[in-house]
Amino acid sequence: MNRLTRYNGPMLNREYDTQVCSIARTLEVVGERWSFLILRNISMGITRFDDLQDQLGITRSVLTTRLRSLVEDDVLEKVPYTERPPRYEYKLTEKGKDLWPVMVQMLRWGDTYYMDPKGPPTIIEHYGCGGSPDLHLNCDKCGKPLERSDVRSIPGPGRAKRDFVKSGV
Amino acid sequence: MNRLTRYNGPMLNREYDTQVCSIARTLEVVGERWSFLILRNISMGITRFDDLQDQLGITRSVLTTRLRSLVEDDVLEKVPYTERPPRYEYKLTEKGKDLWPVMVQMLRWGDTYYMDPKGPPTIIEHYGCGGSPDLHLNCDKCGKPLERSDVRSIPGPGRAKRDFVKSGV
Repeated sequence: MNRLTRYNGPMLNREYDTQVCSIARTLEVVGERWSFLILRNISMGITRFDDLQDQLGITRSVLTTRLRSLVEDDVLEKVPYTERPPRYEYKLTEKGKDLWPVMVQMLRWGDTYYMDPKGPPTIIEHYGCGGSPDLHLNCDKCGKPLERSDVRSIPGPGRAKRDFVKSGV
Repeated sequence: MNRLTRYNGPMLNREYDTQVCSIARTLEVVGERWSFLILRNISMGITRFDDLQDQLGITRSVLTTRLRSLVEDDVLEKVPYTERPPRYEYKLTEKGKDLWPVMVQMLRWGDTYYMDPKGPPTIIEHYGCGGSPDLHLNCDKCGKPLERSDVRSIPGPGRAKRDFVKSGV
């Protein structure tokens, strides 16, 4: 059972019932800045604790807490990748993958208003077409309505040297 | 000049250049939980300091800081509504309005996974049609590709008693 289904009161503030809103509920799960960045990195194929810590540069303790909370909320699952020694990686659940449209829209907004002079740091590319999702998540080149599995993220011209990306946002 | 254009280094962590990402940039501006809830309330027509404070139940000091930062980042503008005494309200700039797709996608995700047994707390309704935005922000009833100005928010069956909404998300 995750934290939210256990919690029956209003969100964020016990005195006010106006926070009963699905935006508030979403922020309750992934509203903390690091959570979205962890999800972004896991989407890009950076799924192991040490790699996440290295890429994000946060403390082990903050990363542990955020990962535990995202697993508890069923956004991530912890999957063993070796048995001896026991080692785990984190994968998006279906619920986690469904945050794709939120992340794409954040990326589009950031690209619109904070474009690096060199260009976007990440390009979401329609596989085999080269277009990108527009406001309506349709391909801006061929018009196809895109879903998460139709695209991959590739480093754009504004990408710093250390980054690499496999897929997802 | 806003905080982000002044800041030329990588985001969030000085040691790592991998945070050069438009998601990180977006979170730098609106990633703090209260900021999104402030923007949500302003979208709904709750534009004055005292009303925002009353609805959100946060301290005057936190609200002041978040509003100042959102104005600095050109997401909100501070507009006088009376001259004597001088009183101001906060309005979304075009840049702030462009966060609409992010908020709609958050709302959809929250509705999908944290639906109140009574139904969604807020319904985004296509004016004069009654449909709602789907994954692609098309109307799920008539199919029209929706923009912010095509919809209004109305209280849904899961809405608590205090809330009222005018428009926007």
